[in-house]
Amino acid sequence: SKNYKIAVLPGDGIGPEVMKEAVRVLDAVAEKFGFSTEKEWADVGGIAYDHFKHPLPESTLKTGEAADAILFGSVGGPKWESLPPNLQPERGALLPLRKHFKLFCNLRPAKVYKELAPACPLRADIVGDGFNILTVRELTGDVYFGQPKGREGSGKDEIGYDTMKYSRYEVERIARFAFEAAKGRRNKVASIDKANVLTTSVFWREIVKEIHDNEFPEIELENLYVDNAAMQLLRRPRDFDVLLCPNLFGDILTDECAMLTGSMGLLPSASIAEGSFGLYEPAGGSAPDIAGKGIANPLAQILSVALMLRYSFKEEEAAKAIETAVEKAISAGYRTGEIWKEGDKKVGTTAMGDAILSFL
Amino acid sequence: SKNYKIAVLPGDGIGPEVMKEAVRVLDAVAEKFGFSTEKEWADVGGIAYDHFKHPLPESTLKTGEAADAILFGSVGGPKWESLPPNLQPERGALLPLRKHFKLFCNLRPAKVYKELAPACPLRADIVGDGFNILTVRELTGDVYFGQPKGREGSGKDEIGYDTMKYSRYEVERIARFAFEAAKGRRNKVASIDKANVLTTSVFWREIVKEIHDNEFPEIELENLYVDNAAMQLLRRPRDFDVLLCPNLFGDILTDECAMLTGSMGLLPSASIAEGSFGLYEPAGGSAPDIAGKGIANPLAQILSVALMLRYSFKEEEAAKAIETAVEKAISAGYRTGEIWKEGDKKVGTTAMGDAILSFL
Ligand SMILES: CC(C)[C@H](C(=O)O)[C@@H](O)C(=O)O
Ligand SMILES: CC(C)[C@H](C(=O)O)[C@@H](O)C(=O)O
Repeated sequence: SKNYKIAVLPGDGIGPEVMKEAVRVLDAVAEKFGFSTEKEWADVGGIAYDHFKHPLPESTLKTGEAADAILFGSVGGPKWESLPPNLQPERGALLPLRKHFKLFCNLRPAKVYKELAPACPLRADIVGDGFNILTVRELTGDVYFGQPKGREGSGKDEIGYDTMKYSRYEVERIARFAFEAAKGRRNKVASIDKANVLTTSVFWREIVKEIHDNEFPEIELENLYVDNAAMQLLRRPRDFDVLLCPNLFGDILTDECAMLTGSMGLLPSASIAEGSFGLYEPAGGSAPDIAGKGIANPLAQILSVALMLRYSFKEEEAAKAIETAVEKAISAGYRTGEIWKEGDKKVGTTAMGDAILSFL
Repeated sequence: SKNYKIAVLPGDGIGPEVMKEAVRVLDAVAEKFGFSTEKEWADVGGIAYDHFKHPLPESTLKTGEAADAILFGSVGGPKWESLPPNLQPERGALLPLRKHFKLFCNLRPAKVYKELAPACPLRADIVGDGFNILTVRELTGDVYFGQPKGREGSGKDEIGYDTMKYSRYEVERIARFAFEAAKGRRNKVASIDKANVLTTSVFWREIVKEIHDNEFPEIELENLYVDNAAMQLLRRPRDFDVLLCPNLFGDILTDECAMLTGSMGLLPSASIAEGSFGLYEPAGGSAPDIAGKGIANPLAQILSVALMLRYSFKEEEAAKAIETAVEKAISAGYRTGEIWKEGDKKVGTTAMGDAILSFL
């Protein structure tokens, strides 16, 4: 029977406690759907810095290399904030992980569950029954990794600079992913750029159009300037289906979308390489202020397991089972503290895990 | 007595009709506060393309050069959308105007008037009594103008690229402006960057801190990553006072802020050079769909006159008089169609101009 090797990297803050629930859910669906998993745990982020003097130690990279996928918790916290940039948990672990494993494609679904629509910061008439936006963000190119970057000169003339850059290959690859993703959804892609100013964006837009016209003419393609997109998401979030974004604009718009849902603790994300390898993590942060209290919402981490099953292991049924169990738990009124309101069933991290298991 | 030379560039779409009201208001305050104006009208944008085959003809630049300030309407429309990028109204006129006149500092106030809070797309409990954010956006540097930019190579390896870049001088200059602006307000500056990824941002953050510590230690300084800022603006807009932004991040966040107010037709902006020269324009677009119908909201254009009086002519009293008249008209219930609701007094462009004149 099938066996999947998983590198489990719980990280800092609430990471370990929500990871515990995610692993319980993973084990339950494995049994139910007839596959097994082999889990190797490793440190990442602040705790890895404490143990190994680096947020992404060689040993952790090795653990990842030996695995079929990485299940990632969250990293960072006040304790490590004054480290030099390259040793900081987020920057020193996330960016090198993306580069090392060539995780070019970042998927961030921003979904409002009907029952949670009141938690959304937008006016009720704009939210309606909720919205469901999938951002497909390019993750290993753009001004994040473009060379050269540096500082030069001195005095008033000293400059700091970075290079924004995309190759045709990179744009084609991510565009195909976005159009494919739209097929199983509402068949609409909004591609984000700043083609009225940036040469990189003119290039991006041209290639996205080519891929669309030649390979996906049946998908509806809209081009939006990033500034306009930041506005339209507030006015008509329900109109959007798939957002196709370069790395930097994707960074900004996915966070805007996440906040728009009002329930950050429910948003998983996937960072995928060519082939089937991927890294799966909650969209929210390590929330050091509530760490260790048993009150963190484990749903984003649990839903990250579903994405891992879908994208890395092609276990679609098991993925769906988890997603359905989460929906049922929400419909049944189970809520962790940050989204709880009068009339809901207030539960802690473990009890939410129990609820999901009971609905599986 | 004082005489100010103004280049009036109404542009396209609703530009000419809202400009007409703005000029009536300007003439009224001039008389009231004892100064005179000399106005030279010139074409810009699509209409300039139609007349001169360029959205920013040499003659219009000359008109601007001979003036103390430019009062700008809005440019663009479907008629000119398929022109080559450099001839398009927005790109071909706005960017060269900024560069030519060295308009390094863009001020975009995003203010929710208490009476208009219901038009805001955010939940009522988040908006409260309204918010008031002033974005100070650097406007002549960053990846907008950084060199080199271009395309190279061919096939899969072809690349498109731009250079993100700031000099110490540019950052110091805009930071000082932001801290000064905060003095007359709530003494808080949030500086926006992406220092966890970009070298340009590390440089930006370092210089902003220096200027703060050495020259404005009494101002509260917060540093926010741009992705986090895009989120926090949705959750706690009332906490922000002055947002200090590099060009690209400012482009995105000012549009997010503008949409958050729910009343784009009320937002003026100023683009200022060293010395007293400036260009003043509404934050909204040319709205070709409602052009020529006499229903466009002239308040953003009228409030742009107030900014011109304040920043280029130091006529603070006259500026305040206009702003007070606008507040009174709003309190009295005057509304153009796009923000009108049951119980308000619905007025067209000219009648709104009349209302402002009557409250002066
Ligand atoms: C921590 C940071 C480097 C990272 C990014 O900018 O990509 C984060 O904001 C994200 O979106 O995953
Ligand atoms: C039209 C465009 C070039 C411009 C910009 O990006 O600066 C516009 O979006 C703005 O904010 O004034």
